[in-house]
Amino acid sequence: MISLPELSEALRTGELSPVDHVRRTCEALAADAHNAVVLLDADRALAEAAVRADELARGEWRGPLHGVAVGVKDLFDVAGLPTRAGSHVLDDAGPAVADAAVVARVKAAGAVVVAKLHTHEFAYGPTGDVSASGPARNPHDPTRITGGSSSGSAAAVAAGHLALALGTDTGASVRTPAALCGVVGLKPAYGRLPVDGVFPLSETCDHVGFLTADVDGAVLAWDALTGTGTAAVARKVGVLVDDYWRPADPALTAALDAAVARLRADGVTVVEVRTPMIDELAATYPVIVGAEAYATHARWVAERPEAYQPATRVRLEPNGDLPAHAYVDALRTRRRLVAELQAAVGDVDALVLPTTRLRATPIGQESVDGVAVRPALLALTLPFNLTRWPAVSVPGTTDGLPAGVQVVGVRLDERGVLALAARLVP
Amino acid sequence: MISLPELSEALRTGELSPVDHVRRTCEALAADAHNAVVLLDADRALAEAAVRADELARGEWRGPLHGVAVGVKDLFDVAGLPTRAGSHVLDDAGPAVADAAVVARVKAAGAVVVAKLHTHEFAYGPTGDVSASGPARNPHDPTRITGGSSSGSAAAVAAGHLALALGTDTGASVRTPAALCGVVGLKPAYGRLPVDGVFPLSETCDHVGFLTADVDGAVLAWDALTGTGTAAVARKVGVLVDDYWRPADPALTAALDAAVARLRADGVTVVEVRTPMIDELAATYPVIVGAEAYATHARWVAERPEAYQPATRVRLEPNGDLPAHAYVDALRTRRRLVAELQAAVGDVDALVLPTTRLRATPIGQESVDGVAVRPALLALTLPFNLTRWPAVSVPGTTDGLPAGVQVVGVRLDERGVLALAARLVP
Repeated sequence: MISLPELSEALRTGELSPVDHVRRTCEALAADAHNAVVLLDADRALAEAAVRADELARGEWRGPLHGVAVGVKDLFDVAGLPTRAGSHVLDDAGPAVADAAVVARVKAAGAVVVAKLHTHEFAYGPTGDVSASGPARNPHDPTRITGGSSSGSAAAVAAGHLALALGTDTGASVRTPAALCGVVGLKPAYGRLPVDGVFPLSETCDHVGFLTADVDGAVLAWDALTGTGTAAVARKVGVLVDDYWRPADPALTAALDAAVARLRADGVTVVEVRTPMIDELAATYPVIVGAEAYATHARWVAERPEAYQPATRVRLEPNGDLPAHAYVDALRTRRRLVAELQAAVGDVDALVLPTTRLRATPIGQESVDGVAVRPALLALTLPFNLTRWPAVSVPGTTDGLPAGVQVVGVRLDERGVLALAARLVP
Repeated sequence: MISLPELSEALRTGELSPVDHVRRTCEALAADAHNAVVLLDADRALAEAAVRADELARGEWRGPLHGVAVGVKDLFDVAGLPTRAGSHVLDDAGPAVADAAVVARVKAAGAVVVAKLHTHEFAYGPTGDVSASGPARNPHDPTRITGGSSSGSAAAVAAGHLALALGTDTGASVRTPAALCGVVGLKPAYGRLPVDGVFPLSETCDHVGFLTADVDGAVLAWDALTGTGTAAVARKVGVLVDDYWRPADPALTAALDAAVARLRADGVTVVEVRTPMIDELAATYPVIVGAEAYATHARWVAERPEAYQPATRVRLEPNGDLPAHAYVDALRTRRRLVAELQAAVGDVDALVLPTTRLRATPIGQESVDGVAVRPALLALTLPFNLTRWPAVSVPGTTDGLPAGVQVVGVRLDERGVLALAARLVP
């Protein structure tokens, strides 16, 4: 995989030219075997790289993303390219007239957008195997899912094609594919990166984030994109002991235990936290996201149901029958129980838990040993979309498929979360 | 009517004792002929007044509300008293255990809460004639409505019983009864006064406000309750020229014209503003408020429909069939069109318009000369619940029933709105 800080340094010093870097990246993406790419924009990217190279030749350096090839989930508008969101529904989409706000920010920071990447259809699923272009494939085992919905972003970083890819996370969609593909995925706090120009799934849960090969790369990208935060030192961390939080795969428990042991050895106080409200809080998620998603899709579902993947359609359609008062109730319950959860976690700086209940499962398989795959890839991440707290998934210790460990900021901002995550990576 | 600044000064100097003032107020409220009062708390109020008097005797003055008798709409919790919200649904409500946040603030400022006041049932109507205790009666003509839903608050101030009464305003409910009863009603910007402990109607539209006899009283109360704002001098004011904003009653047009003439004579620039989105924006209101209200009432409507006034029940019930996606759509449309409205009003400091399309109508009459009463009392105020801007209704020039003129802050805060309102009062 590509370390973003090392790549950045090589570009800054001239050891690697932006044009060579972008050319090689485009060649690698063109040959990608994981179905990570839906649209390669090589010509424009090379032209852009040449401009970045000229700037460097003049001594103009835009910062650590200068000349870095970046991929974006095909949910983000990129001026001149269509946004298809992994769906035949948008087959006829014309080119976007403007960049999504965060894409504009990435470009202004000197990065070169090289490709639109695979997404679970309309980002409405955590598996990454439901899309107009077929399933994405996990670089660790191409018969297995990448996780989703930022499937192509995770696969392209894990395959070593890209050092940085943008994703979105409504309930799992940056962290779960990062976990299943063995990379780092940051979901900042709600609203910290702008959603303007990003195809919406749920306006009260959507978060923009990104994936990198390692924590240092995430720190670099965060600083370059926001310039905010303090790497406060976490002294007290909570682990969640209710059944809800228990993984189905023992390798995930082992990865968590190893991470916690590392923190303890590092002098961090680890306390057990009980969250009696978690099942009721999590139950608000499908109502909230379902209602908000249906409001976007209502006309298409009615007029062109066949344009959706069947797996997406059967999940979207029932949301048309949700009554408004149930949605209002779900929002109220969410507010009340998030406050209860906040009180229950007490004075910990952060929570540490597995990112998922299962590791990457075979493509197309809906359950494993009686454990349903979809909820197993959502349950441990979605609570922090409801709370809107910053969270990152980092690769945990494992002897086989990647296992993700999640760090969630309670009193920490994104930089604090990343600083803590750096201490528990093997 | 009672001028709050004069009352405040008399209490501060000792010209009037809190005990005498509260005793006389309770006597007046006990004899009230407008059905303004639902619960008189005379004994506790007199005891409280005695404490306030002792404080004054020791030289302790809490500020300009010290010793002032205040009434609160029966939607606010007052510790020890039931909150019935004008409905038989809450006939069995026990005493509230704590004061609503704004009631606590009023008390801390030295005021004495003397009574719970009449409200349109559950604040779900702008007329004030639908309530478990029958219709409130307009002090200017007891055969006519007060307007609502803060019906008792407006009647008690207009009748000269109280200098200050708390109300709530979800679409009209402070400003419309103020207009119909010839008093001043301030709806601050959303969230400026806390809704905690206030029976909700619509969490995205509910505003806490208050009514006074004159603008100076409103300024005094605002400063005492919040201590915030700047009386910026408005230089440019907009008048709204689309059909939507036209009153049905020519006396209201005349009152607006007189106010505008006064502003022009005072050197204010007056510009015409077009709002092509206003009908579509206003159409989101019943969906938003209906869904949010139904979420609160769903169980009662199902289990005890007969406990509601029929006029309330027939308006509540259909909201049970609203689909969630229609509500989500209404919230999205609201956000989009509020931004358009903001752009359309341009660089004016404030808007000046009538508060209502009709003046006080006969109790029980649903339309007047073919004009439906309910929408006529809502249409000109509800847009500023959707925008969440501060707005005040003040009495306009009239030779008969009161006519309200509304000042809405675009670039002005509450103090700025009140300062402008003071310039257009006859």
